[in-house]
Amino acid sequence: MAEFEKTLSAIPLKDLKIDDSFWNERLRLVTEEMIPYQLDSLCDRVPGAPPSRCVRNLRIAAGLEEGRFEGFVFQDTDLAKWLEAVAYSLSFKPDRELERTADEMIDLVIKAQRENGYLNSYFSTLYPGRQFCNLKEGHELYTAGHFIEAAVAYYNVTGKDRFLKAMCRFADLICQVFHTPEYEDAVPGHEEIELALMRLYEATGRERYRRMAYDFVNRRGTTDYLSRESSLPRFIDVWHDRNPYIPEYGQAQAPVREQKTVEGHAVRALYLLSAMADLAGSYRDRGLLDACERLYENVTQRRMYITGGVGSSGTLERFTADFDLPNDSAYAESCASAALAMFCKRMARVTGEARYMDTAELALYNTVLAGTAMDGKSFFYVNPLEVVPGFHKPATDKAHVEPRRRKWFGCACCPPNIARTIASLGEYVLFRGEDELRLNLFIGGIYRTRLGDTDVVVNVRSVFPQEGVVNVRIWARGPMKGRFLIRVPEYAESTSFTVNDEPAKPEYCRGYAALELSGEKVEIDFSFEMRPKLVYADPRVTADAGKAAVKRGPLVYCLEEADNGPGLSALAIDPEEPLTEEFELSLLSGCVRVEALGTRDTWEAGLYSTRPPDKRPCRLRFVPYCFWGNRRPGEMTVWVRLKC
Amino acid sequence: MAEFEKTLSAIPLKDLKIDDSFWNERLRLVTEEMIPYQLDSLCDRVPGAPPSRCVRNLRIAAGLEEGRFEGFVFQDTDLAKWLEAVAYSLSFKPDRELERTADEMIDLVIKAQRENGYLNSYFSTLYPGRQFCNLKEGHELYTAGHFIEAAVAYYNVTGKDRFLKAMCRFADLICQVFHTPEYEDAVPGHEEIELALMRLYEATGRERYRRMAYDFVNRRGTTDYLSRESSLPRFIDVWHDRNPYIPEYGQAQAPVREQKTVEGHAVRALYLLSAMADLAGSYRDRGLLDACERLYENVTQRRMYITGGVGSSGTLERFTADFDLPNDSAYAESCASAALAMFCKRMARVTGEARYMDTAELALYNTVLAGTAMDGKSFFYVNPLEVVPGFHKPATDKAHVEPRRRKWFGCACCPPNIARTIASLGEYVLFRGEDELRLNLFIGGIYRTRLGDTDVVVNVRSVFPQEGVVNVRIWARGPMKGRFLIRVPEYAESTSFTVNDEPAKPEYCRGYAALELSGEKVEIDFSFEMRPKLVYADPRVTADAGKAAVKRGPLVYCLEEADNGPGLSALAIDPEEPLTEEFELSLLSGCVRVEALGTRDTWEAGLYSTRPPDKRPCRLRFVPYCFWGNRRPGEMTVWVRLKC
Repeated sequence: MAEFEKTLSAIPLKDLKIDDSFWNERLRLVTEEMIPYQLDSLCDRVPGAPPSRCVRNLRIAAGLEEGRFEGFVFQDTDLAKWLEAVAYSLSFKPDRELERTADEMIDLVIKAQRENGYLNSYFSTLYPGRQFCNLKEGHELYTAGHFIEAAVAYYNVTGKDRFLKAMCRFADLICQVFHTPEYEDAVPGHEEIELALMRLYEATGRERYRRMAYDFVNRRGTTDYLSRESSLPRFIDVWHDRNPYIPEYGQAQAPVREQKTVEGHAVRALYLLSAMADLAGSYRDRGLLDACERLYENVTQRRMYITGGVGSSGTLERFTADFDLPNDSAYAESCASAALAMFCKRMARVTGEARYMDTAELALYNTVLAGTAMDGKSFFYVNPLEVVPGFHKPATDKAHVEPRRRKWFGCACCPPNIARTIASLGEYVLFRGEDELRLNLFIGGIYRTRLGDTDVVVNVRSVFPQEGVVNVRIWARGPMKGRFLIRVPEYAESTSFTVNDEPAKPEYCRGYAALELSGEKVEIDFSFEMRPKLVYADPRVTADAGKAAVKRGPLVYCLEEADNGPGLSALAIDPEEPLTEEFELSLLSGCVRVEALGTRDTWEAGLYSTRPPDKRPCRLRFVPYCFWGNRRPGEMTVWVRLKC
Repeated sequence: MAEFEKTLSAIPLKDLKIDDSFWNERLRLVTEEMIPYQLDSLCDRVPGAPPSRCVRNLRIAAGLEEGRFEGFVFQDTDLAKWLEAVAYSLSFKPDRELERTADEMIDLVIKAQRENGYLNSYFSTLYPGRQFCNLKEGHELYTAGHFIEAAVAYYNVTGKDRFLKAMCRFADLICQVFHTPEYEDAVPGHEEIELALMRLYEATGRERYRRMAYDFVNRRGTTDYLSRESSLPRFIDVWHDRNPYIPEYGQAQAPVREQKTVEGHAVRALYLLSAMADLAGSYRDRGLLDACERLYENVTQRRMYITGGVGSSGTLERFTADFDLPNDSAYAESCASAALAMFCKRMARVTGEARYMDTAELALYNTVLAGTAMDGKSFFYVNPLEVVPGFHKPATDKAHVEPRRRKWFGCACCPPNIARTIASLGEYVLFRGEDELRLNLFIGGIYRTRLGDTDVVVNVRSVFPQEGVVNVRIWARGPMKGRFLIRVPEYAESTSFTVNDEPAKPEYCRGYAALELSGEKVEIDFSFEMRPKLVYADPRVTADAGKAAVKRGPLVYCLEEADNGPGLSALAIDPEEPLTEEFELSLLSGCVRVEALGTRDTWEAGLYSTRPPDKRPCRLRFVPYCFWGNRRPGEMTVWVRLKC
């Protein structure tokens, strides 16, 4: 069991600026492509795309426009997530025009807010005067949570508190209502408010928000509220209410402290876990921390794709069973991997253990990245590990898997979620502790913070993930006293450290290498080898038995039809032959290609035959999974058969 | 392209009696277990089971009972299929009591019939006076077809024509209504009436029935009737109407003569093909025959499981795409394999080609048999080829696959369909032609028929599928002139024939070995070897690439947890080692077990690791797929990885 790490905190985004050969382009896409495109989408200005109606709904709720609400019950959250992404974007790319637009949107949101603080354009316009009348699927608290997250982000980056104050009024209403007898065991169907209240608590220091989050988390699974709610007089039936309700869908199968497996809707489960981790750290709550660790183990050791994708079933977008990880019908929602990274970031902060950052890195560098096209203009909602385009026909079991990214989605949770996750990447990189700094991810940039009482600037440069080469320079305003910890990832081989060009022998501590700091200027070099490796899965994963995947550092690789021709299932890899790697500037904007030797089955019989396929030697060409589907559409697979 | 075989017909069931070491027990189960159990179910007399309401619905429609219809729109068909199974059962096991019960049920059906001949307890009671108001999903013509099939069967076996005449009145109504202008391009959403009308034509010789079947078949896919119907004034919205309608779901994506792939709901598709085969033969319609052959090739060479199962998607119970044959989420409905056998039987009769009987045999000996437990008391609706019980959780993508057979189903199409299929097995065994007899399946029994002008009795004895040993004795009332053809299946090796104990050299003709008959008594012995073999799939079947299945004769084998312990996905077979076989009397009521050598992966890492699994040698124990799931519940797999 982990200990609590008392003092770790992330560097605020306003105090850092990422400058990294790998991520600069992704951040640019968020700022230059995704944010403008998503704004156009929210305002129904994208020709040919189905209208979002998001802004229009809020204008109707604000009394600025006549009309009827259109869209999902949680349509407001698209604007909330956009505002959050904008806040993060402003932290690294100030933009007056964009900030003015954001301010206008915030004005609109505040105008749409009711007098008592309530905010929700769906219920305000369609059921005026009603509030919190369907927690199971009404998404009111989920929507509230996203507005609160956006307000906190905007305040943290810009210092403007108008939005924050408005959302505090909403949060105050929530804290009041959900402590009345009528709602004393009420919990939201879709978690999010819990972690949002924790962020609001961190921004304002107001205990009532933390306590409300704590109560929501602790109530869950202790009563049958979500099953019972639909018989309450205030209940309004909306959207896809299921009857009978499946408690595990909303993580209500048992009290959260007693849960042994991660169940139900993957995004819901991981938002809940994020709040649990926050609360565990904030209250030093051992029981919650134990549950978080247990459920982290269950996810990562039994229910997670090698790509950091989670949620095996398209039906209910959910976790299913230990080792049930089908590749061609995976759900692995982009939002769920973003949520997994969010949970792991919190666990790393609370426990000081590096392994959580291994998982966050895996999710960010593979599934979250794959969720967006390299031009930032189209998105995956679902992230399969095996695709034969013809197999994913509409109205079949595998219809939820789409072989090509889409411009936008009717339920558009993923694109803005990816945008806000990538834009907030800086929060993952460097943590500060009492007398220490710790580098979690090898992402270049300038990070301003304090070490003890001393102001320091940390300049990280790296060519990761192409190479395992990290250079850190730390300047202080005075003599430094403390340690610099660097995460040593599981894939790093032949690691070496130098401090001020002298070989150094770090102490190892929970997955970090710790180096003593002294003087006013220190330069640290960390280098390691990252050879491409074959990775195998527990044979209980029926989908992967007898197969291997290629991984190089944090990047999972895949075979694409563009490099290997059609019929990827005919290919097998020879594990006795070495994997070779080569950086190719012309390939997918420049990336390390991995090649292997193996065989291709050839077949001249009918569908079935007693004659085994002939095999001819061939070369297999792998590219990073995060870049798949950026050339012509075609087959893709992560897991490849072993030559037999 | 095949020729038309002019004169082949099946031996009527009343003229034959199966007596076969393998099938006697299955037939006994139909008579002694399934028919009585299903009657109890239809009459709501099974304690603890959800009531069928089938008989009660008809009593309400007949004015014998007050109440409201309950069940599916096609609930009546459960009684129809039961009556059909009873008719077949009476052919080999006369039973006055059962026949009296059947007569009473027929009385009830006739009482429930409207004055104009219309029969359907759902529409008669819920929408009195309305008829044919929802062809897309109302299942009125589907239900009519099952009543007609039952009436023909009952007439053929018992000679009683009361039911037949009543159903002729219904068929007359159909022929009249569906040639009025309002219905001139109407087709049923769920095929069945077409093949039923052909059976009625064969029983009565009335051309109008054949013509109606022909028109229904030829109309399909030529207009948008099924998409358009819901806007018609007479339309009544029932059950699971989909809007927009997917034409391929009901094989309406193109005119049937132009279709190149088998699409949509598998049972519907194969009932349609059965009628197309009947019509092709009956009208000598080359265009229809070409379509049947093309679609047969598509099914069997691209879309059929090795077990003769068809339909890869639980969503819409449908065909999906060429080579998309997932094992653990297979649908492979029992009814669909019964329908495949029905189609193939017709094609074998129309073309005289043995390959169709290869497929019929595959479907019957594997999926249709697996559909019923060995005690005849529980059933599979869905027939997976790979099961890990924990993976098939409710409310997930694989929820449609159940790891254990069920007593009955809310939608209870499969149990009575399996019963009627097994009970009518005699119709597959022996065909008569102008101057020939042909043995299609190696199923023992006494078959009375004619060869030219001579009455003959054919006595078939076999120990198939345990061994490839078939003995045929033919007695005639006078000197015989003609040929006896025996199907030589693809799996038969070292075949040898003797006629009256003398070695014989048959002529081979479209998959049959032809032997000349002469004299008043002939004895033919046909023996062949059936060694267990590894079978491989086209590598484009992603689910089976790098794997093999074990087959011995017509029987596909599988690994079960009961014989191999848990974790079947850790097993791999060594194709270099010989397969051994042994008949075990104590195993699954006596069957040939196959053993192989291979390896078992052992694993001590986490979910993923760069260290490959260790392998230890082990023995793999296979049992026939048709008997799977008859011991304690557990894992099962048909396809096994090849050792690497």
